[in-house]
Amino acid sequence: MKKVVVIGGGTGSSVVLSALKNIPDMDLTALPVVTDSGGSTGRLRDEFGFLPVGDLRQCLMALADDRTQQDIKKLLLYRFDKGSGLQGHNLGNLILTALEDIEKKPGKAIEVASKIFRIKGKVLPITENSTNLVITYEDGKKLVGEHFLDDHEKGGKKIVKLELSRPAKLYKKAEEAILEADIIIVGPGDIYGSLLPHTLVRGFKEVFKKSTAKFVYITNLMTHFSQTHDMSASDHVSVIEEYFGKYPDLVIVNSEKIPDKILKDYENEKEFPVIDDLPKEKYIKRADLVSKVVVKQEKGDSIKRNLLRHNKKALSEVLIKV
Amino acid sequence: MKKVVVIGGGTGSSVVLSALKNIPDMDLTALPVVTDSGGSTGRLRDEFGFLPVGDLRQCLMALADDRTQQDIKKLLLYRFDKGSGLQGHNLGNLILTALEDIEKKPGKAIEVASKIFRIKGKVLPITENSTNLVITYEDGKKLVGEHFLDDHEKGGKKIVKLELSRPAKLYKKAEEAILEADIIIVGPGDIYGSLLPHTLVRGFKEVFKKSTAKFVYITNLMTHFSQTHDMSASDHVSVIEEYFGKYPDLVIVNSEKIPDKILKDYENEKEFPVIDDLPKEKYIKRADLVSKVVVKQEKGDSIKRNLLRHNKKALSEVLIKV
Repeated sequence: MKKVVVIGGGTGSSVVLSALKNIPDMDLTALPVVTDSGGSTGRLRDEFGFLPVGDLRQCLMALADDRTQQDIKKLLLYRFDKGSGLQGHNLGNLILTALEDIEKKPGKAIEVASKIFRIKGKVLPITENSTNLVITYEDGKKLVGEHFLDDHEKGGKKIVKLELSRPAKLYKKAEEAILEADIIIVGPGDIYGSLLPHTLVRGFKEVFKKSTAKFVYITNLMTHFSQTHDMSASDHVSVIEEYFGKYPDLVIVNSEKIPDKILKDYENEKEFPVIDDLPKEKYIKRADLVSKVVVKQEKGDSIKRNLLRHNKKALSEVLIKV
Repeated sequence: MKKVVVIGGGTGSSVVLSALKNIPDMDLTALPVVTDSGGSTGRLRDEFGFLPVGDLRQCLMALADDRTQQDIKKLLLYRFDKGSGLQGHNLGNLILTALEDIEKKPGKAIEVASKIFRIKGKVLPITENSTNLVITYEDGKKLVGEHFLDDHEKGGKKIVKLELSRPAKLYKKAEEAILEADIIIVGPGDIYGSLLPHTLVRGFKEVFKKSTAKFVYITNLMTHFSQTHDMSASDHVSVIEEYFGKYPDLVIVNSEKIPDKILKDYENEKEFPVIDDLPKEKYIKRADLVSKVVVKQEKGDSIKRNLLRHNKKALSEVLIKV
């Protein structure tokens, strides 16, 4: 039984989780961040004061049993487009908010959701404390809130520092999962929004240092204008090393050409393929990882373009070898 | 494999459904009414124009797998007590409303909910058409909306007629379930609110007449001030016969004394035990059916007293013999 921990909670990590969940003899744990803000999640945080639920919801969907996954996904992604006060709210967020209210402890709320939706593997919040990201740009400007990381207006500038608005403590069960893991997979995903915040949680770095798990980092396919503008693959790895305190044991990089039509879409948003300037070493694993399926932009999505994803099957083949 | 259909959707029928769901070799179908109104359901009906979801939700909860039932129940019963616009909304209602919007057809929405929550048996709406109850009292007053049946102010008067505000057609799958049933159980439950509305749906009476199933009626333990004030057991059976067009093949009546403390609670609301004035015949089955567990009134409940229920185990023993 291999114990695998996936760090990250956005759509990137969802691909990894769905790629791995059906592999037999694997004990899979997702550790999403709980610093998302803005949108429906933001409104609920303001009104209820609970832990944000957006990334937790993503992980639940990814780990749902294949037989019910499509239905669970539709349910958790549903957004009310009418109803006074309901409008704009995401049903998955409402469900998790209700469970946080019922169970009082966020960790327990996710456990109950996992049981109700019979997901494979475990989802654990990295912390049970409510906190926000503080982002400092190269021009000295400071902003509080993860949602600014998706704000195109704030793009094109280098982020020089990421902090938490209030200290947060590593969730006990997340600590255990890290210490017991055989493999820890970080990414793919928005570095500043979904991968680095974990390392800011009190206790994380010490526990991560102690862990003897193989540390795998999967680089992104494209840069993100408001987070990783102009960053090459080695720039990505450097930031990961800086915040996690270790150089990854294995870096997985895409070597497949991305179709021109998709590049055009991204170019319009000032986003480009992540250039592979990593050394030709054994610990850098190159593979064709581009998904043939493009995720269509949906009404209410904060990002205004179709989205390219990693190829689940190809990624799964690479990861099985690990 | 015995095919059993349960007509009714409120808390009374829930007891029957939970009593039967674990009996092996039984194909169980719940046919709740879809004429509930008022409260969270009413607000959602007004704003979305969908089928009401209150009784469908009750049936889903009753049929949930025992391992997850308590969690599913808590989730579906959760009521938001803050949040602008969310306040007062029941989460189960929101989930079913979302599914009606996603699936477009109410029958399909319930099917998906059944799959997601992995319920045992089936829940089918009696009709997919949106309609309301029209209640005529002995003094000639007419009111539109099922919620008036729980309005204490309207109590103490005999209801002389029950109609639908708009014609509704029997749902195809409900028709099939009735025709294929070996046993059809009606009640216990609010006669006017939960049991008789089925018979007003176009096509129901003809199909029910054709059915060769054993027709079982379970009488209520207590009268209901705003529905069945002063009605004895035989009064109940008469109304059932009038609306269903057949005298039941078997009537199940409670013969156990109800504890004084509970009687007191009900007396304050002008509600009393249903007096058994039925003949001593083989088709009248008497048994001790009072639950030792009293359901505590909860914040937001429309009925302002603790609630007596049928005893699940005792009822199940009687029904197994049928």
